[in-house]
Amino acid sequence: MDLKERALKLHEENHGKLEMKSKIKIENQEDLSLAYTPGVAYPCKEIEHDISLAYKYTAKSNMVAVITDGSAVLGLGNIGPYAAIPVMEGKSILLKELANVDSFPICLKTQDVEEIIKTIKYLEPTLGAINLEDISAPRCVEIERRLIKEMDIPVFHDDQHGTSIIVAAAFLNIERLTKKPLTEMTVVLSGTGAAGSMVARMLKKIGVGKIYAYNINGVVDKAKYDSYDFLIKELIDDGIFDTPKKHDNTLKSIMVNANAFVGVSAPNLVTKEMVKSMANNPIVFAMANPTPEISYTDAKEAGAYIVGSGRSDYPNQINNVLAFPGIFRGALDVRAKKINEEMKIAAAFAISSIIKDEELNPDYIVPGAFDKRVVPAVAKAVANAAIKTNVATK
Amino acid sequence: MDLKERALKLHEENHGKLEMKSKIKIENQEDLSLAYTPGVAYPCKEIEHDISLAYKYTAKSNMVAVITDGSAVLGLGNIGPYAAIPVMEGKSILLKELANVDSFPICLKTQDVEEIIKTIKYLEPTLGAINLEDISAPRCVEIERRLIKEMDIPVFHDDQHGTSIIVAAAFLNIERLTKKPLTEMTVVLSGTGAAGSMVARMLKKIGVGKIYAYNINGVVDKAKYDSYDFLIKELIDDGIFDTPKKHDNTLKSIMVNANAFVGVSAPNLVTKEMVKSMANNPIVFAMANPTPEISYTDAKEAGAYIVGSGRSDYPNQINNVLAFPGIFRGALDVRAKKINEEMKIAAAFAISSIIKDEELNPDYIVPGAFDKRVVPAVAKAVANAAIKTNVATK
Repeated sequence: MDLKERALKLHEENHGKLEMKSKIKIENQEDLSLAYTPGVAYPCKEIEHDISLAYKYTAKSNMVAVITDGSAVLGLGNIGPYAAIPVMEGKSILLKELANVDSFPICLKTQDVEEIIKTIKYLEPTLGAINLEDISAPRCVEIERRLIKEMDIPVFHDDQHGTSIIVAAAFLNIERLTKKPLTEMTVVLSGTGAAGSMVARMLKKIGVGKIYAYNINGVVDKAKYDSYDFLIKELIDDGIFDTPKKHDNTLKSIMVNANAFVGVSAPNLVTKEMVKSMANNPIVFAMANPTPEISYTDAKEAGAYIVGSGRSDYPNQINNVLAFPGIFRGALDVRAKKINEEMKIAAAFAISSIIKDEELNPDYIVPGAFDKRVVPAVAKAVANAAIKTNVATK
Repeated sequence: MDLKERALKLHEENHGKLEMKSKIKIENQEDLSLAYTPGVAYPCKEIEHDISLAYKYTAKSNMVAVITDGSAVLGLGNIGPYAAIPVMEGKSILLKELANVDSFPICLKTQDVEEIIKTIKYLEPTLGAINLEDISAPRCVEIERRLIKEMDIPVFHDDQHGTSIIVAAAFLNIERLTKKPLTEMTVVLSGTGAAGSMVARMLKKIGVGKIYAYNINGVVDKAKYDSYDFLIKELIDDGIFDTPKKHDNTLKSIMVNANAFVGVSAPNLVTKEMVKSMANNPIVFAMANPTPEISYTDAKEAGAYIVGSGRSDYPNQINNVLAFPGIFRGALDVRAKKINEEMKIAAAFAISSIIKDEELNPDYIVPGAFDKRVVPAVAKAVANAAIKTNVATK
């Protein structure tokens, strides 16, 4: 059977991927009288007088909602909330299997930003945190920011932050391997949406010198400032994006002499010639999925020193499962109010430090998706960062 | 330890009562590639072209949301959405333990009727059905009706229908035991809220002759029609409530010569004298919880022939767990679009028929809450009724 048949069979035979489980047996009147009426009234009354006791007496402390509107699902685009369910269930079971985080999928039958924000806020009482997923840019940024400001629990849009954290971990290890300071690097970023914008911010935060950006409308250039959406304007304002001195609005023109290419964009945008035009020992992270901006083989043949992608069948897979399970685990463990920049940076450092100096090599820059050391290390680092930055409440 | 200590300990030690479980192991790259990217794209694409395939490839077909706004929780009143969580988790685990229905609790941080309706509609994609819970009357009726009309999945407010179905089952067995036709009975109903109004409708539907109603404002009387909310007006319009010929606006005055008392109201409203004033072999269902309208002992001493309550420590407990698990099981099994009157009546008949003629006696009118025959019998009857009334889609 090919992948399609195996995947459909798995989903059909199991009737989806997620089920619920009672922590308590209900077999007799005593069980019922404690877990349900009349005994259940006692935890209710305790929480009525202090809502923070919901963390003590209910499943809230470990419960996450995985929420989408189906507007940007995988690389499939705006396929709607029903078609998004398998992805959200997948995310839910990964949270459980990799980090023992409980969650359930919510696929909202609205794509109106204000309605999405309001609805998610209404869902807060039973939840310990919120994982936003596969919401199109730049709406996702607005939704996440508003929710972070207006809710008392962590809100994390994995499409924005997951990739950025792991790319940052990769670049920390590239600096360690190559000894070339990140401050001296020029990175060309292709794709300035949800993932791309946060990749740029994280790379800048860990010290990358210059970032040139490219998207469907060409090279990002301060001269065209007024034509950009708020996301790109902010990245220019904050000094994250630099304007290349010379360019003809093509990706090719800004890759000349660049040290690294980072793509979260579209298939086959990069040719061998473009890689050859880069500085010595070029670094290529081509993460468009399933078809990257340039294949591992082509990039290597063109002289790339380090190549990463979103694919599991080549080295250096940038796989979000390295980040989000440990991040939620860490945030929930200390009952963080938010997942802040320091916690994301801590996650990046934790992921990078899994690989020892002597193991580090061009084909082993990021740990494998099933490296059992990753989730506990990320969780611990994230929890500690939450405590240090005073967002932990436990 | 007393009940309070035992109940709090159970909730604290387990961190609530509900957790999630993956149906699929995620241990290697193959697992990940089928349950998540890239394989998960295939069920997504199938569903994109036909949203009904969400029933085939996701957990939707067995997934229920247990939803409240915390406005009328148990007998505790409007304690809010946080304090309601333990009850909703309790309902969730009962659905799983008794009928293998998966569910998760949603406690909405709004008590605005229109916002509640809109929010629940947005949640539809991942859900096979909706269990509304502990929403105050008459808002709950409006919310349920609108959702039934505007959604494609079953919506069931247990507080309205659960009690009514089991009381109906009890009266079917009372007719069987006493041989007195229901059509010749006069029932006094105390409480005309969510539960009371549906109890009246169900009793009328199975044939009860006359129903006199009483609530906090006194005896329901057609002469006071304009002062009533829409729920009571409808019950008068539909001929469910009769106006007693003679009364002085007290419960006492309408109990004289009545055959049965059914209370879903408040503690200690009924005295021994009032029971003594009823017709021969009076029937008393006093379901205010935890303190009934009259105790089992007092009712029996006053000459009641059959006594039922909401309590597990006396005979004939009217316990909702007899109804809702089997009702959801049956509705989900045939993918019913709605839970209609015929399905509720079928559930009442299924519950009553569990007790054989030779077993039937005044202290055994309804089956016990842990009778393992109940859920499968109810599920089967409900599914068959759905098929017969053309609301089954599978």
